[in-house]
Amino acid sequence: MRPTIEWAGDKIVMIDQRKLPLEEVYVECRTYEQASEAIETMVIRGAPAIGVAAAMGIALGMLGVKAGEDRAAAYARVHNRIYRTRPTARNLFWALERMKAVFEAQRESSLAELQKKLVAEAVEIDREDEELCRRIGQNGASLIKDGDVVLTHCNAGGLATAGYGTAVGVIRAAWEAGRTFSVFADETRPFLQGARLTAWELERIGVPYRVITDNMAGWLMHRSEISLAVVGADRIARNGDTANKIGTYSVAVLCKENGLPFYVAAPLSTFDFALADGSLIPIEERPDAEVREINGRLIVPPAAKVRNPAFDVTPARYIAGIITEKGVARPPYESTLDALRNR
Amino acid sequence: MRPTIEWAGDKIVMIDQRKLPLEEVYVECRTYEQASEAIETMVIRGAPAIGVAAAMGIALGMLGVKAGEDRAAAYARVHNRIYRTRPTARNLFWALERMKAVFEAQRESSLAELQKKLVAEAVEIDREDEELCRRIGQNGASLIKDGDVVLTHCNAGGLATAGYGTAVGVIRAAWEAGRTFSVFADETRPFLQGARLTAWELERIGVPYRVITDNMAGWLMHRSEISLAVVGADRIARNGDTANKIGTYSVAVLCKENGLPFYVAAPLSTFDFALADGSLIPIEERPDAEVREINGRLIVPPAAKVRNPAFDVTPARYIAGIITEKGVARPPYESTLDALRNR
Repeated sequence: MRPTIEWAGDKIVMIDQRKLPLEEVYVECRTYEQASEAIETMVIRGAPAIGVAAAMGIALGMLGVKAGEDRAAAYARVHNRIYRTRPTARNLFWALERMKAVFEAQRESSLAELQKKLVAEAVEIDREDEELCRRIGQNGASLIKDGDVVLTHCNAGGLATAGYGTAVGVIRAAWEAGRTFSVFADETRPFLQGARLTAWELERIGVPYRVITDNMAGWLMHRSEISLAVVGADRIARNGDTANKIGTYSVAVLCKENGLPFYVAAPLSTFDFALADGSLIPIEERPDAEVREINGRLIVPPAAKVRNPAFDVTPARYIAGIITEKGVARPPYESTLDALRNR
Repeated sequence: MRPTIEWAGDKIVMIDQRKLPLEEVYVECRTYEQASEAIETMVIRGAPAIGVAAAMGIALGMLGVKAGEDRAAAYARVHNRIYRTRPTARNLFWALERMKAVFEAQRESSLAELQKKLVAEAVEIDREDEELCRRIGQNGASLIKDGDVVLTHCNAGGLATAGYGTAVGVIRAAWEAGRTFSVFADETRPFLQGARLTAWELERIGVPYRVITDNMAGWLMHRSEISLAVVGADRIARNGDTANKIGTYSVAVLCKENGLPFYVAAPLSTFDFALADGSLIPIEERPDAEVREINGRLIVPPAAKVRNPAFDVTPARYIAGIITEKGVARPPYESTLDALRNR
């Protein structure tokens, strides 16, 4: 299998996550506009993977600049297009900041040199992300014990990152360490990332898993059929409040009510230390059609109105630990996250 | 529009709830076997509607008895077939008990007289149910105030009953009383009763509504976008523990966490006073295909395993009130439900 996303000289190749698990189709982006559309339409999704795609999109956009063109104007155009693809995932903006720093450091360089440096940075962000996920996995693996049943929501796996995954990285590392346990994957309406993507990944890892509808998790907790939950994150505020796929808040509340630990796994690139708390995280509202239709077929009366917030924010008080590449932060997050960051 | 279910002389006519909202198709059952299959495959669903279908199924089965046949053996065969269609809804067994009492009271009657009495009882159960729902609506209507946003889960509407509905009956009665409010309908995977059936009914009633995926309700509560929840029931134990569509437990926990009242609406025919608490209620596990596929198309990897409990049990401590045809019971339910029953 090819990676989730790959730089291929003068184009980006990514697996089309809208088509999994039934079709394994790869999409090529040759322009930054195509890369932007791939992010918007969720060909690629998951905060760390969006960060990688954004960085590669910048590289692609600047490869299209001709000698004599206004480089700063071109950069602003490419940057602004990618900047407005999706609002919630911190990694998108984090990657854009890293790319911009490279651009600014190369003001005096030749265009060819600038382009080379931008491509190198994007490839480096991709490489680093997989490494960070492996460390997250190592740091979180011991939280899963023999006989546990782990609940995860949405897909925070290799497909949501450069590879290996965050929440699924923890599951994978525990499995590779020889622990015996099983997983429940919430299907995660409306986009079905759990049923389609997490299931597809867990099958390849070989860990036993079962898919459930999102509304079953609470009942299974109440029946003591779940031991803990671990999810990814799209943006984490300074106090530990965590934006993640819609439904995560409900999982966290249900864990609390049933006395189960609820963990978040994310690299530091997902943290937004500029935000005091989660109320400041912008929450994307996605198109109505994602709720109104499944596989292109209407499931509601034609005139039905819907809501489609793509994320929610889980208050830090529900989170037992945040698993990062530098270790596992425990409450109170105001101090522990700051300590981790500066470690 | 024709009723949800109707006795038509020598057959039962019911709207095919698997096809709504996009197709309005009616199914005719001419044998008790066809009626049993209609219950099993969810052509008709919803505890009170299942009760009506079961009663009409008995009548249909006994209409097929020939002169000289062993009536008791025939009755047992028909009864046993219908008895094992679905295990959770109390109304099924309640209706079978009522029909059996008629059968036993007519031991000395002619076959024609017995058949006439059984048909009359089934038609009476149907008629009564709609009347009870209207009373439930009247008793619950004042719980909805101007400006409220009401959450409901699954479909406890006219389609789940002989007509009018229980939870949707409360919504309908409040709307008919001139209250201005709106409704969120949980889509209710896997069978999508909320997206398909509740939305279809709310549209006909004229109350503004929006459909959400099941995992959005908690976040909307947290954002103060929901005022209260009202749901139906499949079986209620003596202490108030309530079995209802999978996901109801989660709605109740999320209401508690957000300080919102969670109401159950059901006729006394849904109560099982023989059961001390909800742990004794049998929970149906439905076929895997309902979770694995949507509209006949696979949404998980082909080898994926799933769980499919069709119901959960909400402990009485989460329930602010149980709305019945005899009034609204409040905790402690052990005493208030018993008082209602004997009123």
